Amino acid sequence: MCPERLIMEHITSRWGTLALIALLDRSYRFSELRREIGTVSEKMLAQTLRTLERDGLVRRDARPVIPPRVDYSLTDLGREAAEQVRGLARWTERRTAAVERARAAYDAAKT
Amino acid sequence: MCPERLIMEHITSRWGTLALIALLDRSYRFSELRREIGTVSEKMLAQTLRTLERDGLVRRDARPVIPPRVDYSLTDLGREAAEQVRGLARWTERRTAAVERARAAYDAAKT
Repeated sequence: MCPERLIMEHITSRWGTLALIALLDRSYRFSELRREIGTVSEKMLAQTLRTLERDGLVRRDARPVIPPRVDYSLTDLGREAAEQVRGLARWTERRTAAVERARAAYDAAKT
Repeated sequence: MCPERLIMEHITSRWGTLALIALLDRSYRFSELRREIGTVSEKMLAQTLRTLERDGLVRRDARPVIPPRVDYSLTDLGREAAEQVRGLARWTERRTAAVERARAAYDAAKT
């Protein structure tokens, strides 16, 4: 797989997209972000954030306090990626009804 | 899966992305588009185009000539989707080197 493709898959993955968009607003602690996204398992969110951190899109900031506190935020690169993916997500939301009408028409023509 | 997610997966799929971006320039016959994309199998491209057609993004125009001729082009909705996805693909290309540097730094810090 070409490297561009792999990056694109990380940022357009289900949880990658939702995490990037949430982090455009502000930084989050892990548990807060999980609540914000809603349906993601702890394991999947941890894996998603690790992938985005490794790609240089998300910054993980572990504070040496008791209880331990870890904050996640976007890097400059991550902010660019998040803005691209938010544009796509907003387009998709805005056009879902049109796509659903097209599908109904397609299916009706085929039967 | 929510309907927005499914649309997003269609337009950001490997072949969906490449087909939409190619069709931004002009309409293509099936075999031309396959050559343009390069590595896609006939079966995968046919399936991708059918999915995009059903979503109302691609128009399939079968001409009653001999030999039969089928042209694919973008609908207005498809042009919007293609522009979004091209923005994302261009960002990814532009930033691949930065992401690869981040990964190398991450991996070096972990070992």
